[in-house]
Amino acid sequence: MESAIPSHLETARSRHRRVPDDYAPPYPSFVARHKPAVLSVIMAYFGVQYRGEPTAAATEALAQIVARFAADNGPTHWDRAQYVDQAGFTNVVSVAYWDDAARFDAWFEQAREAWTGSGASDGVGRFIEVLRPHVERYETLFSSLGRPEGVAVLADGMSGEVQEHAYWGGMRDRIPLSQTDPMAPNGEPRAIRDGARIRVVAHDNLCLIRSGQDWSDTEDSERKMYLDDVEPVLREGMDFLRDDGGPIGCYANRYMRVVDADGRLTEKSYGQSWWKSLATLERWAESHPTHVRIFGAAMKYLSTLGPSAKLRLYHEVTVAAADEQFFEYLGCHERTGMLGAVQAA
Amino acid sequence: MESAIPSHLETARSRHRRVPDDYAPPYPSFVARHKPAVLSVIMAYFGVQYRGEPTAAATEALAQIVARFAADNGPTHWDRAQYVDQAGFTNVVSVAYWDDAARFDAWFEQAREAWTGSGASDGVGRFIEVLRPHVERYETLFSSLGRPEGVAVLADGMSGEVQEHAYWGGMRDRIPLSQTDPMAPNGEPRAIRDGARIRVVAHDNLCLIRSGQDWSDTEDSERKMYLDDVEPVLREGMDFLRDDGGPIGCYANRYMRVVDADGRLTEKSYGQSWWKSLATLERWAESHPTHVRIFGAAMKYLSTLGPSAKLRLYHEVTVAAADEQFFEYLGCHERTGMLGAVQAA
Repeated sequence: MESAIPSHLETARSRHRRVPDDYAPPYPSFVARHKPAVLSVIMAYFGVQYRGEPTAAATEALAQIVARFAADNGPTHWDRAQYVDQAGFTNVVSVAYWDDAARFDAWFEQAREAWTGSGASDGVGRFIEVLRPHVERYETLFSSLGRPEGVAVLADGMSGEVQEHAYWGGMRDRIPLSQTDPMAPNGEPRAIRDGARIRVVAHDNLCLIRSGQDWSDTEDSERKMYLDDVEPVLREGMDFLRDDGGPIGCYANRYMRVVDADGRLTEKSYGQSWWKSLATLERWAESHPTHVRIFGAAMKYLSTLGPSAKLRLYHEVTVAAADEQFFEYLGCHERTGMLGAVQAA
Repeated sequence: MESAIPSHLETARSRHRRVPDDYAPPYPSFVARHKPAVLSVIMAYFGVQYRGEPTAAATEALAQIVARFAADNGPTHWDRAQYVDQAGFTNVVSVAYWDDAARFDAWFEQAREAWTGSGASDGVGRFIEVLRPHVERYETLFSSLGRPEGVAVLADGMSGEVQEHAYWGGMRDRIPLSQTDPMAPNGEPRAIRDGARIRVVAHDNLCLIRSGQDWSDTEDSERKMYLDDVEPVLREGMDFLRDDGGPIGCYANRYMRVVDADGRLTEKSYGQSWWKSLATLERWAESHPTHVRIFGAAMKYLSTLGPSAKLRLYHEVTVAAADEQFFEYLGCHERTGMLGAVQAA
């Protein structure tokens, strides 16, 4: 058993963990481990938005970002997912990961200009949402080994079994900064118009979660149980966050299906949501009826199947400083991503 | 909105609350408020144990403790409840409350001698379980005003709406000592034989919860919903703790029906359980399937009924120092109360 906080990020605590030192979780979980030389990671979401069938311009935009990703200083890993949002638009999101800020900076300026700059007015909505947290400011969690996802693909490897999970508060306790900082938010998101594009400036300690599900390894009865008993409850909670999350601190939520290189749906999905703070995410997860039902359905599923379950679950959670964020929207509807937070404010 | 911790017990914190200062609970709850002059309270459980129909000796013992309670320096409040335990014995428990240690001490020695002393060998099992916590070491919570129960009957009154509830960790945050102390347990319970009686010496930071339900004000459809949808799930969780709680830190659990002065069942019940620590109680409440089901059933019930719900819920939770505990058993079976903790150890 090891701490989720890597030893090189352990500091003298001014804030306690939520569990005693002899706490033993009831089942195993794992976290991604970077080399100590990694100081920060970059998570960059590039979105394409259109209504109905993909236009030629949308297809071209998707090919364009793939080419950019393959260029010098491009990301170490990227994946793509899509969903239809509350306004009926299809959003295809390509998310790319770096663990070297200098390489990202060398890559980003041209990519941004091509994506949301003046040359991009082709009638397709586009957005960029970037967090670049110091490693003290994020955590991961995996239910099983052998298939890293998201930022964990960049990691040096996975941990052994970690202690800080399977209790409410584990998410916070896995973030190294929680040793000394309550990570409270301040301020309200505001919009800055720059010609046709709109940037959103949020606030310190904005929170992002990407929470993924992978049922590609499940066999018949387990697959049926996941798709019939768990997925609909998950979808209901995701829909609640998308449509009515504002009052409880969820700025935006996308429940997306991962697609492969040819744009075909895979048997992986993830919810990606922006929150006013880690605390608001904690409150929803712990006590909102929609997540209590998700938790109940997942517990029933996992306790029925036990260690034989083939479903893979993971998440990555970041609490970003104000200067670790970038949001830019071009030609998107007003409830897209963090734009919705500004409209609601 | 006020803190559950009364202002005269606020101290400079070395440990943080689990919620930010702007946390707003989604529904109201209240706590008992004692006069600042009250330094400690005493909760004394006097049990009678027999198999089958009450014997004359059992009936006599129950009358005897009532007479003791009415004597000089007797408790300010007491009530009585009963249940059939896992060994098939009926246990009738009279619990008495004081808020003046000197009065309790003046009363207790004779009462103890009469209850578990050499004159008490009448074939009826008897036990005494006493906690006498300083007010820093316990908390209460009530879903509604107007009918205090348990130790709250002694209080000067009830609070306004308190902040520290409706999240996991609220119980801890309501205990004043949590401002500075993790309240970790140490050691294992051990038994001391004294002739026919057995005393149990537990350990620092043993935890007691009395968690009550009162459906006497409910009308037809709400009563049916409570008795059909909630109570069976509660009972299942209580049975789990009674029969299999040991490995998760629950030393003993009694799910009891309150009886009136004539021994008739009322429409009130409470679970009373002894725990190795507040942390073990927290873990069960937050993540054990049996309590997750209770929580889910209660949430569904309360969200269906909203503020019109007539069900009353309350609890009192104590984390007792080693010198604030007294356990003594005479003629009881080996799984009675804290005796079971010794057998299991």
